[in-house]
Amino acid sequence: MKFKKIAVTALAIGLSSATLAQSIGKPEDQIRWRQSVMQTLGWSMGRIKANIEGAYNKDQVIQAANTIQALANSGSGALFAPGTDKGKGWHETEVKPELFTNTAKLREVGSAYNKEANELAKVAAAGDAAAVKTQFGNLGKACKACHDEFRKEQK
Amino acid sequence: MKFKKIAVTALAIGLSSATLAQSIGKPEDQIRWRQSVMQTLGWSMGRIKANIEGAYNKDQVIQAANTIQALANSGSGALFAPGTDKGKGWHETEVKPELFTNTAKLREVGSAYNKEANELAKVAAAGDAAAVKTQFGNLGKACKACHDEFRKEQK
Repeated sequence: MKFKKIAVTALAIGLSSATLAQSIGKPEDQIRWRQSVMQTLGWSMGRIKANIEGAYNKDQVIQAANTIQALANSGSGALFAPGTDKGKGWHETEVKPELFTNTAKLREVGSAYNKEANELAKVAAAGDAAAVKTQFGNLGKACKACHDEFRKEQK
Repeated sequence: MKFKKIAVTALAIGLSSATLAQSIGKPEDQIRWRQSVMQTLGWSMGRIKANIEGAYNKDQVIQAANTIQALANSGSGALFAPGTDKGKGWHETEVKPELFTNTAKLREVGSAYNKEANELAKVAAAGDAAAVKTQFGNLGKACKACHDEFRKEQK
């Protein structure tokens, strides 16, 4: 039952159940790791935003977009295992309990995140700033859709 | 002078000075982001270790190795800007002041980290568990060399 729940959650964000072969970490580790992944995403998004709004540096945007792509495909969904709906990593988790039950919605927002992150890496490599701006917006919407659904309001 | 120092530090870990076009974040942001990057690396290294020691799952090792590679090439050296030798991100920074002055050593350990991370991603894609084990060891040594040199002893 416990494994089944993990598998469903992971599948919902575009992972194969095979990737669960080695799930590591105590709940507090998993919460700290996923908070770290989110922060690393935030740093990378912020860098791309600065490049769009300021002088555009193709290499830096590629670095950031590749980081986002790797994280979107990293299998970080496994860090939302049962028992991690409450608890403290760097800080108290902000996840809503719905993430662990609304698998249809999780699958929808997770797939969009994957798709838009992969597309952003492709667009960044091509180096057209206007296209990056558009795709950055698409990814931002995918992030927001998941946050609106599954993250508690931030204090 | 300030820019020159950033440039030297960034170059020392294998970045081009062009990647500094947009340096973002206050010192406390930069410290929190680099601590998050390190945690994400730690999670990924832990996953590979679990795969080497347990049942080997090629896809999961690729996910983790690609994450490490993207982070090693992310330009996270820019998060060690002057003024971030002290301060608190998630916790008080553990960086030694030597990181900001011993650029020769920083260049050496930074280049090794890049090289071994890129190699691990390549080896992971090929899927030979024994080769991954060897290369994981090489990357671990590169991590340790930098920690020994530039990270204060952890409490």
